[in-house]
Amino acid sequence: MSQPLKFYFDFLNQSSRALYILLEASKIPFEAIPISMLKGEHLTGEFRDKVNRFRKLPAITDHGYQLSENSAIFRHLAREKLVPEHWYPRRHLGRSRIDEYLAWQQSNMGVATTEYFQQKWLVPYLQKTRPTDNAVNVAGKQLEHTLNEFEQLFLNSRKFMLGDNISFADLSAICEIDQPKSIGYNAFQNRNKLARWYEAVREELGPHYKEVLGEFESKLKRSGSGQGVAQAVKQ
Amino acid sequence: MSQPLKFYFDFLNQSSRALYILLEASKIPFEAIPISMLKGEHLTGEFRDKVNRFRKLPAITDHGYQLSENSAIFRHLAREKLVPEHWYPRRHLGRSRIDEYLAWQQSNMGVATTEYFQQKWLVPYLQKTRPTDNAVNVAGKQLEHTLNEFEQLFLNSRKFMLGDNISFADLSAICEIDQPKSIGYNAFQNRNKLARWYEAVREELGPHYKEVLGEFESKLKRSGSGQGVAQAVKQ
Repeated sequence: MSQPLKFYFDFLNQSSRALYILLEASKIPFEAIPISMLKGEHLTGEFRDKVNRFRKLPAITDHGYQLSENSAIFRHLAREKLVPEHWYPRRHLGRSRIDEYLAWQQSNMGVATTEYFQQKWLVPYLQKTRPTDNAVNVAGKQLEHTLNEFEQLFLNSRKFMLGDNISFADLSAICEIDQPKSIGYNAFQNRNKLARWYEAVREELGPHYKEVLGEFESKLKRSGSGQGVAQAVKQ
Repeated sequence: MSQPLKFYFDFLNQSSRALYILLEASKIPFEAIPISMLKGEHLTGEFRDKVNRFRKLPAITDHGYQLSENSAIFRHLAREKLVPEHWYPRRHLGRSRIDEYLAWQQSNMGVATTEYFQQKWLVPYLQKTRPTDNAVNVAGKQLEHTLNEFEQLFLNSRKFMLGDNISFADLSAICEIDQPKSIGYNAFQNRNKLARWYEAVREELGPHYKEVLGEFESKLKRSGSGQGVAQAVKQ
């Protein structure tokens, strides 16, 4: 058999979780190579020199070909591997809708969830301090705004973003929302549509999702021995 | 004949120029509908309510279907219309490379060129003031960094980003670089590889590109009657 796909990831990163779940759910054979962002392994050594010149996670190598960027890896898999149609459906211009969401996510949802996670958890962890109230408040306001936009622009009366079937847009979005949620942020207050959609996606994704989310949350707990972090996780 | 594609754009916006050139060069029939960002037309009225709920340019409607986001519109055209293969080539995983570049552009090049343009031209124009030196310097530093990264990560000894043929990655990137260039920024100092690539892309794009760039630059001149703006354009 030829060289399998190599997948470099860290479950602390939302796009790593989304693609890992997609790979598992699609039964694509892959070699899982965890890279620790907290130890800076994505910035140095063999990873930087031979795996990913962008110094970013997630990344893949496929037959010696390096590729970075969440949305680019997703489309690469959809073209080169056997990804079930519902994740990126051709019907009713589903692919155009998913592309539009992924582009919006990159400049909006992804920025807001990452910033909140950094201010409330990552910076305090790395600097061994408590979170700065002001920075967390600013990030929290941005996150509020983004979640409201997400609900308005992308959710409707249907079960999933594109209708009756789950797609990669739902999978990406739930992993984004878990980023603040798993450190104690309540995303669902006054957002009934969001809460209903979240439950439906979680239910549909089943064990692949639960397992990966569990890994993420135990990583948070294992790392969260400092004062500020323990508080951040509890809240 | 059925309803043609409607393309909503403003030549002040780099992605509007890139997609307009792609449509023209690919001979895709479309109705060109200019929307003035300086007058805020993308934020109000029929455009917001019936054309684009994202209140962003560029946007399309295709058979009544609304779509936003530069990269999503590009892929929609590649799937639904007759776009020549070299713009988004399947060979040698060209599509994966272009997807990777477009994602990088969205979070890096696009942010830096937009910020520089805003600080040096747009904010002074709208507020009828001179550019703030400090803000322009900060934006200029970020732009320096991004252009260096672009040269390192995406250019090589080949003529275009993917090799001998021009692709949508080149077209997108040149329109990004024109954003600061057309208001006087020198992108090519100590960047020979960038200068060579820029010339090759400009040459290859021919009259479609020159015409659209000319429209952009005369828009800048027509709007640039204020003191700060006149200076910004000259520098």
